[in-house]
Formats: sequence, C-alpha cells, structure tokens
Amino acid sequence: MSNLKLIEKNKNFNGFQCVYSHYSKSNKCEMRFSIYLPNTNKKLPVLYFLSGLTCTEQNFIQKSGMQKYASKEKIIIIGPDTSPRGNQVPDSKESFLGQGAGFYLNANQRKWKKNYNMYDYITKELPELVNKNFNVNIKKQGIMGHSMGGMGSLVCGALNKKIFKSISAFAPICDSSKSAFSGNAFTKYLGKRNKQWNLYNPIEIFKKNKINNKILIDQGLNDEFIKDLYLDDFIKICKKNNQKILIRRHKDHSHGYYFISTFIKDHIKFHKKLLS
Amino acid sequence: MSNLKLIEKNKNFNGFQCVYSHYSKSNKCEMRFSIYLPNTNKKLPVLYFLSGLTCTEQNFIQKSGMQKYASKEKIIIIGPDTSPRGNQVPDSKESFLGQGAGFYLNANQRKWKKNYNMYDYITKELPELVNKNFNVNIKKQGIMGHSMGGMGSLVCGALNKKIFKSISAFAPICDSSKSAFSGNAFTKYLGKRNKQWNLYNPIEIFKKNKINNKILIDQGLNDEFIKDLYLDDFIKICKKNNQKILIRRHKDHSHGYYFISTFIKDHIKFHKKLLS
Repeated sequence: MSNLKLIEKNKNFNGFQCVYSHYSKSNKCEMRFSIYLPNTNKKLPVLYFLSGLTCTEQNFIQKSGMQKYASKEKIIIIGPDTSPRGNQVPDSKESFLGQGAGFYLNANQRKWKKNYNMYDYITKELPELVNKNFNVNIKKQGIMGHSMGGMGSLVCGALNKKIFKSISAFAPICDSSKSAFSGNAFTKYLGKRNKQWNLYNPIEIFKKNKINNKILIDQGLNDEFIKDLYLDDFIKICKKNNQKILIRRHKDHSHGYYFISTFIKDHIKFHKKLLS
Repeated sequence: MSNLKLIEKNKNFNGFQCVYSHYSKSNKCEMRFSIYLPNTNKKLPVLYFLSGLTCTEQNFIQKSGMQKYASKEKIIIIGPDTSPRGNQVPDSKESFLGQGAGFYLNANQRKWKKNYNMYDYITKELPELVNKNFNVNIKKQGIMGHSMGGMGSLVCGALNKKIFKSISAFAPICDSSKSAFSGNAFTKYLGKRNKQWNLYNPIEIFKKNKINNKILIDQGLNDEFIKDLYLDDFIKICKKNNQKILIRRHKDHSHGYYFISTFIKDHIKFHKKLLS
C-alpha cells in the first residue's frame, strides 16, 4: 500500500468507511477516494459510485446511507472524487467546469489535458489500485452513478465490459452533447463540438454498444433538472439496439441525495445479484 | 402557518423531509428547524433530535439516515438548529461559543442574554409551534440528541417530563461543568462558575430528578472525545437515584455521524415503543 495514505477510517454498520489519498498518474495530482469495507476476510464484489457535479468523494458516503446495505450484502463500495484537485490543477470560475466537474472524460485541450483524465482514472488506474490493495473479486465489478456520474457509469461501463459487469444510474445525464450541464465543459475539455464528444456521450455509445446485463435507471419525477437529462431519448436508443433496461420513475422525488438514499438499497441489491 | 416559511421539501422514503424557518420570540431572530413528515393523515408521535457543536439543522437530516426508520415507524422527527443565527446575533471567534454552540441553555450575561435562549426555545416555543402546525399527538413527544445535544436532551427531557416522555442520547456531554467543550461557553453565557451552571448539567439534574422511563445512551469506544463526556460519572448518579438507564458501548465506533447512522434505528424504535 506504499502509494495509499489513509485519511479517514470510521466504523459504520458492520464494516469501516475509509477514505484514502494517492498520487494519480492519470491526473498528475493527489486524488482521494472513499472505500466501504464490510467486515470479512473473504474476497468481495466491488461497486463503483460516480458522483455528480460539485461533489467530492465525501457526498456519497455522508448522505446516501449506502453503508447499511453494503454491510449486509457484503460488497465493497468505492467513491472516487469527481475531478483532479489541488492548487497545481487548472480550475475555472465558470459553473460545471474545472475542479468538481471532470465529466469522467480525457481532455485533449491545452489547458486541461495534463490533469483532466478522469476516464483513464476510473477505467484503469483506480480499479488496478483497488484490486491490488484490497480483497476484491476482480470478476465481480459493477459501476453506478448519479447525474454527471450516471453519465459516467453508462459511458465507462459500456466501453469496459471486461471490467464492469453491471451498470446502474440515478438521474443520469443521458445526452451529454445536448445537456446544458455538459455543453460548456465538453467545449473547453474537447474543443468545439466534434467527434470526440461522442466518445463520452451515453446516447452515442449505446447506438453501437450494448451490455449483456440489464441496466437499472431510477428517475425522480420532481427532478428540477429533468429537462437536461434526456432519459427518453436514451430509452429510444436502447430499445432500437435491444439493450435491456429497467427504468423506474418515482413520483415526487427530486434530483439530490434524498432521492438516492431512498433507492440505493435497490441498486446495491441489483448489482449484487448480477455479480453473483 | 403564518409564521412558518417552507425552505426545503424533498420526498425521502415514504414521506417528506422539510425545513422551515420562523421568527423566534425566545431568540429574537429567524430560526430554522427540520421536520420529517411520514406520509399519513394520522396524528403521530414526535421526536426531537438536538444536534452537537457546530451543527445546523442540516447535519442530522443529511447524514443520519433516520428518515428510513421514521417513515417505517410513522414518527415525526424534528431537528432544531443548535443556536440563534444571523448578522444581528452575537458570535465569537472562539471555538464552541456563539453561533453553532447554544448549549440548549438560557444565557444571562449581557452580550448573550437577548438571543441565546435555546432552553426556552426547545422546551416551550418550538414544541408549541410544531404542535400547532403539524398533526402531532402531543401526549407522545420524545427527545434525543448527540454530544452537546445529548446533554440538551438529558437536561430538557428531565426538567420537562410533562412534555417529553422518553429520552435517549448518543455520546452525550454528561457533566457540562467539567467538560472542556462546555466550560468556556458556560462561563461566557452564565458567568463564572455559579449555581446557574447546575441548571444545565445532566449530572446535577439527575441528582434531584428522575424520569419514569428508561433512558437509552449509546457510546462509541473509539470516541475521540470520550474523556470529555463523563459518562461513568453520570451512570453512578443514575444508579444512586434509581434512574433506569440502558448504556450500550460499541467497539471501534467514533463520535460522529457514522456512529449515529449505525444506531439511529434502535433509538427511533426505543422511543416509538415508549411512546406507544
């Protein structure tokens, strides 16, 4: 564990909620991730949760209540940060750009390309680090996410089927080329609208890719950002491509962690079942 | 509801997590409190949760995961702020003093006495406001709290047995005259050590008072602040005075919300049973 520094460790249900820091080669900076470790010596399945805009590795572990179910289902849950961090890392005063808004892509524009390589970080560097240092069954890895992180889980999951065997999302940004959340960031990270944008757009990816397992997506019907998510367009693409998908729409539910905490149990059980 | 302003309302499990603001006569300022409302038209029991130092009305509702159990047990849960707030309210740069550190007492010192009347707020003004505006069974009110708020729940509960029928606490400050957390604040709010201090000290109160129901207290054994809580001294006083008390000590558990979220289910069930 030479590269891993323990930042936090707290007993929670029948396990420990930890936060580690490490130097990331992909992002050329120190990065943090959270890991919930159920109390067992057995090799366990692992589930990645990609957070939404402005989050750090903290929001999910403080607000979702997931530890109760991770403890019960005996599944390790990893929560990466949403971008590179630190004084040496480029940032922006614009909303939804820079630190806290990595969009799980590899930037190719001058200002950003050195540090903003969250796609490589999530799909290569972090799983390798986790699998080397913790008691993970590497055949049983799943990925889920929320909003920007829901987009990330669909993108990273569909393009890395050998790593991630199950995918789910809460209120994901399904069309990152159209969404007001991602438009500016994509322009800055990848240049004016071009083919690169399709590499990180769930709608474009699922036109050409599918995964064997069903995908679970939960959507609140009182979601204040629903018009920027494009879920219906994504469903059309999945139907066309015979991608199995389970969409659940929830009356009154909004976009944030009160929505996530209500349904996180179902997501963990969903992944556990597919990974078993 | 003329005096109540709705600040937040989010569906969470089978109910709504709300935050209201209102003008407080006790504290001469606008105050916020949280309320979890299970989805029913029936009159429900109500449980107050008093938070610890530096908290607002937000920490408990974001981090404890209590809504799942409040929803299931059909109990309303109220989370007051920990002090008066606002630019017009005196504050301090010292730790554990001023805003975020009301200690659930009525101050009598010049700088503080106009606004710092959290004891009156918690034991009179807020229950009256809640009972008037929500569908509460006023015979079924309980109180619990954490750390400074655990102290508050023991103090406010024992001295207001007609209001609060059940008491529990997580890692409470049991001797507020001895604890490093409260010493400075008590001096500033109440003057140099004097008889007033005893009015807000669980150890002194339980020398002369007892409640009919058993009190539940959970304490983590890896609590970083354990030496400033004086739980053992409190247990001695309770034994002497025949106060029924259930103490549970938890290996590895620390002081914060990971500890609370693990055991909040038990507290809610404990109160529900006593209030039934």
